[in-house]
Amino acid sequence: MALAMNRDELSQYLKEVFPQVHKDFVVEDLTEDSITMRLVVQDQHLRPGGTVSGPSMFGLADVSVYAMVLARKGRQSLAVTTNSSFDFLRKPEGGADMIAACRLLKLGKTLAVGDVLLYSEGSDLPVARATMTYSLPPAGSAAANFG
Amino acid sequence: MALAMNRDELSQYLKEVFPQVHKDFVVEDLTEDSITMRLVVQDQHLRPGGTVSGPSMFGLADVSVYAMVLARKGRQSLAVTTNSSFDFLRKPEGGADMIAACRLLKLGKTLAVGDVLLYSEGSDLPVARATMTYSLPPAGSAAANFG
Amino acid sequence: MALAMNRDELSQYLKEVFPQVHKDFVVEDLTEDSITMRLVVQDQHLRPGGTVSGPSMFGLADVSVYAMVLARKGRQSLAVTTNSSFDFLRKPEGGADMIAACRLLKLGKTLAVGDVLLYSEGSDLPVARATMTYSLPPAGSAAANFG
Amino acid sequence: MALAMNRDELSQYLKEVFPQVHKDFVVEDLTEDSITMRLVVQDQHLRPGGTVSGPSMFGLADVSVYAMVLARKGRQSLAVTTNSSFDFLRKPEGGADMIAACRLLKLGKTLAVGDVLLYSEGSDLPVARATMTYSLPPAGSAAANFG
Repeated sequence: MALAMNRDELSQYLKEVFPQVHKDFVVEDLTEDSITMRLVVQDQHLRPGGTVSGPSMFGLADVSVYAMVLARKGRQSLAVTTNSSFDFLRKPEGGADMIAACRLLKLGKTLAVGDVLLYSEGSDLPVARATMTYSLPPAGSAAANFG
Repeated sequence: MALAMNRDELSQYLKEVFPQVHKDFVVEDLTEDSITMRLVVQDQHLRPGGTVSGPSMFGLADVSVYAMVLARKGRQSLAVTTNSSFDFLRKPEGGADMIAACRLLKLGKTLAVGDVLLYSEGSDLPVARATMTYSLPPAGSAAANFG
Repeated sequence: MALAMNRDELSQYLKEVFPQVHKDFVVEDLTEDSITMRLVVQDQHLRPGGTVSGPSMFGLADVSVYAMVLARKGRQSLAVTTNSSFDFLRKPEGGADMIAACRLLKLGKTLAVGDVLLYSEGSDLPVARATMTYSLPPAGSAAANFG
Repeated sequence: MALAMNRDELSQYLKEVFPQVHKDFVVEDLTEDSITMRLVVQDQHLRPGGTVSGPSMFGLADVSVYAMVLARKGRQSLAVTTNSSFDFLRKPEGGADMIAACRLLKLGKTLAVGDVLLYSEGSDLPVARATMTYSLPPAGSAAANFG
């Protein structure tokens, strides 16, 4: 149940593998079965009307669960998302960063499942709820696959 | 944010509207934004192999969110389920009751959303995660509808 | 891409593995990547108000995708449902059988995905849409698992 | 059941409301209950490894169902996404456009539901399946809401 990477190692690794977007995402907190991540909201994350776009929220939830899996499984992990469900609950604030609070519900041999509540920073009411399932490569495999 | 029914009133009401199955479900705890319910697992809830069946877990999650909405909106509520997502995480114990821990994430004018973790009693690891969305009848309407 | 069981073999096998409920479900049609199944609607499938219950619809969608996987993978398959999403669209007719039209979208090494439209017999408008993901046991494994 | 906008009117309207991204999306075909849309895949839609990113696929599915609702309800529609489910089935081709084939399953007073198969152009096997639910503003209302 131990972490394979701590918060600093995880942040460094995300920087390496997502060079284009690593500045968008910040690891705020990390435990053995939870992670909190921040989306630094910028113009490209907004949609007409000035709220955070659906694809940006999808990206944040997806990265959060992926980072959680990496923190437990280590750098070699080549997990791919196989399923996602999303409930959009309230209008996000366009002028606030978005915070993802993720719980790891399962880390099995071939599947990992995490769920996420998304908040506009400074609000207690979630703007969205998401679940992400990742397919994990078999031990010894060098390649990601979709199961 | 107050409850329209307390735990006893809610239990009594479920007995009236679900005469066939009310003995299957017990309201264990109720707050303004959460409910804990028990499925008293019996033979008809099991599938071959002796674990709790998918339809039984679906029913428990669905009743839990419905009961939460009733507790807040009151007896006249004619909510219908419009969406459900389910992640089955682990094998349930066939010989244990199933406990649903439900959070109310949103109670709007036309939609209510709750999510649920399901546990085999005595275990800390969830066997499933579910979200249910209910469509609420417009104020003054006498009939349930699917939106 | 060939079927491992034809319609008669599949029907016979469902009878063996689901002795309690096999009379509820009829395989109406089977191709290499689709199956049509009928739920013979009886009192136990109804909920107050006389419509088909959510758990009954869940069960029909789940059995349909499972039967499709069996038809392709053969009797030894020990697949378990790991994910489900459901959209309830319209009120089903309580007095009509329910028909599930299932497409197999993916049959991988470890995951199979099928989606389903549910109809009240005699109507062209779907009452629900569902997707089911099954985790398949690794080749040579004797036991079902949740990934 | 008639369309409120034909394909040209819809394309023109998407150009007005999505000035930043309208060149990414092309309406290929439109009927009363289906739409085919193309994502013109460019660098910003890719993720490391050269395949189309999850957020880009989410965006395409979301725009497709939104465009379908607009085509039926007309320009005044202020629908917002309330729910999404996604199954990622295969690795998309990074060098091919992505095609979304969307069916409108329901267009009610307050909710619309469409499902979508996503393909890399030139392939018959779907890379993903998605469902999107939109909350529609009540007749006479000037504002979008989350229900």
